[in-house]
Amino acid sequence: MSKDKVQIFDTTLRDGEQVPGCKLDTAQKLVIAERLDLLGVDIIEAGFPISSPGDFNSVQEISKIVKNATVCGLTRAVKKDIEVAAEALKYAVKPRIHTGIGTSESHIKFKFNSNKDAIIERAVEAVRYAKTFVEDVEFYAEDAGRTDNEFLARVCEAVIKAGATVLNIPDTTGYCLPDEYGAKMKYLKENVTGIHKAILSCHCHNDLGLATANSIAGVINGARQIECTINGIGERAGNTALEEVVMILRQHPYLNLDTNVNSKLLYDTSQMVSQKMGMLVQPNKAIVGANAFAHSSGIHQDGVIKNRETYEIMDPADVGVNESSIVLTARSGRAALAYRAKNVGYELTKIQLDTVYDEFLKFADLKKEIQDDDIHEIIVASGITIETTA
Amino acid sequence: MSKDKVQIFDTTLRDGEQVPGCKLDTAQKLVIAERLDLLGVDIIEAGFPISSPGDFNSVQEISKIVKNATVCGLTRAVKKDIEVAAEALKYAVKPRIHTGIGTSESHIKFKFNSNKDAIIERAVEAVRYAKTFVEDVEFYAEDAGRTDNEFLARVCEAVIKAGATVLNIPDTTGYCLPDEYGAKMKYLKENVTGIHKAILSCHCHNDLGLATANSIAGVINGARQIECTINGIGERAGNTALEEVVMILRQHPYLNLDTNVNSKLLYDTSQMVSQKMGMLVQPNKAIVGANAFAHSSGIHQDGVIKNRETYEIMDPADVGVNESSIVLTARSGRAALAYRAKNVGYELTKIQLDTVYDEFLKFADLKKEIQDDDIHEIIVASGITIETTA
Repeated sequence: MSKDKVQIFDTTLRDGEQVPGCKLDTAQKLVIAERLDLLGVDIIEAGFPISSPGDFNSVQEISKIVKNATVCGLTRAVKKDIEVAAEALKYAVKPRIHTGIGTSESHIKFKFNSNKDAIIERAVEAVRYAKTFVEDVEFYAEDAGRTDNEFLARVCEAVIKAGATVLNIPDTTGYCLPDEYGAKMKYLKENVTGIHKAILSCHCHNDLGLATANSIAGVINGARQIECTINGIGERAGNTALEEVVMILRQHPYLNLDTNVNSKLLYDTSQMVSQKMGMLVQPNKAIVGANAFAHSSGIHQDGVIKNRETYEIMDPADVGVNESSIVLTARSGRAALAYRAKNVGYELTKIQLDTVYDEFLKFADLKKEIQDDDIHEIIVASGITIETTA
Repeated sequence: MSKDKVQIFDTTLRDGEQVPGCKLDTAQKLVIAERLDLLGVDIIEAGFPISSPGDFNSVQEISKIVKNATVCGLTRAVKKDIEVAAEALKYAVKPRIHTGIGTSESHIKFKFNSNKDAIIERAVEAVRYAKTFVEDVEFYAEDAGRTDNEFLARVCEAVIKAGATVLNIPDTTGYCLPDEYGAKMKYLKENVTGIHKAILSCHCHNDLGLATANSIAGVINGARQIECTINGIGERAGNTALEEVVMILRQHPYLNLDTNVNSKLLYDTSQMVSQKMGMLVQPNKAIVGANAFAHSSGIHQDGVIKNRETYEIMDPADVGVNESSIVLTARSGRAALAYRAKNVGYELTKIQLDTVYDEFLKFADLKKEIQDDDIHEIIVASGITIETTA
């Protein structure tokens, strides 16, 4: 059975770039856009053209250089926004306008001081207007996560009739649990007339740490696009992390879903975005963190040295990391010490290893991490005499 | 309906501390243990006593000072480990020994070069031996995430008979999807004779970014303990983040589950652990990241200024953060500029705001973030004359 493709919609340059401290200039955005195109994402959301002259210019320049991906610009359901986005996208080989409006009770009441029928009317008008400029129009139902499913289905039906090609169902506030978000997608798939004409898209925020799980629940239940960012950056606690959803689909072949992303470029792309935006990636970040493939406890190290598969579900090389590492700390066991000692030239017998290990623990209780240089010192301090193999 | 309690088992000082670069001395561990006790966690896993003399000493000292929580020590299914742990825990008011062994095919074959029956025998012996020292014995079935459910149920049944009070079902490699992990808990709940005598526990790793979602799926399906760490630190991509599961349960009252954690101490505890361990928390970390409650896009800021609830599902004060912030960047709109200008003393009319906003965008396209000082400069540069209100 051939796998269904899930489109990867990267919004690093739009939802990611709007983060405090992440602002990029056009030259930096162009470098990242080229990289995303090489990585194999299907859609690059390049910016929000009406928001500032700088952002308009960036979207226009990105449109000129991207070769493979669709280039997308964000708008509100406002004519001027749509006109400006269309202008910014005019050089794109595959342009997409992303327009929409809030559909939850809270957004309709407090943000728009409006009512449900008027919101549907504005949504339809925006999609129709965007269609006069481009074929590919994505509609977002903002705060869909807190929108009741029946009304959401009405909105979706109306915008599909108006020509929307993609329906973005954002959990804008990051509130949904995976079962709930998955059920929402399933409801739309089953209850929206004409749903086969459009692609359902997941756009999840990470306020409760569930963006990735929600996006996966979305595609299991019929969505075929995930909106995400490199390193999961974005408003507040950020968006779904691109590297996580790509690797989850790859490592769970029974889901029969895959993406076009070249996973071997994930680590380098993560580093590039982190450096250009000055946004740190924590060491324990899944897939791309500095420690993601580092084994330090004795029990784990012993297992990995015997057979990598005991503690690793991915080959680090598949995400562009050179190799998993065996780090020596006070929590490491004899197997790791013997392994690292051998790497620097000492073949220890079992009895020698016991003596050296006692000395090692004294050192390790005082230091965070034992380096190769320390191993020589530890062996000298242990008082044993051994030939080096190297 | 009164809510079921989910026990919070904090392993920051064991699974967290074994991370490269995170090593703490005893004095630092004592400060963190006291803080975890104050935070209201139910169990503190203080260390792995056999692993080093320093760790033994830390577990012993922590046992002396913790007033409310159970203090737990890790062991392998090895007599010597259990004896040393019992000795380290002897001053604890509520001691727990945490023992176990790998149960997946991969672990049985490659790590232990053993077979299923022999593994069950070792498991039972370890639990029985631990019971000679303490009442409260938790058993871990290492790599339970990749262990077939039928065998896992056999192991659970055997160790409950031997006296285990808690059954830890670790997704050691971070491979499970939430549905799969939840189904595993449900299977055990329904198929293990005597399961009412023990508490099922979730211990999830974050290799694919799913630790939090898996733990929540676990408790929805019958588990009543979550093993987690502050900031989600731990082996490789880390463990379930304590702050995330606590807030998910709190913000979803319909689940009828709650913890004893005082959420107002979450932010400070996160900062303390990050500083003592030298482990950075990325700005987009859920709940405790620097940006977790920062709004920067114009659309979001406008909404939040009108009504906080449009984009916030939690009150920042509930996790110990003073207030949500309205950050000014090139993606900010007029509403945010007016709000921040008013905070520094300028009441702008609608016409003045238009003029100042154009000037603001020029500044903002050049700078990552606009500070209060910049606002004065922008207003001067815009050439309008206004009275300050302050």
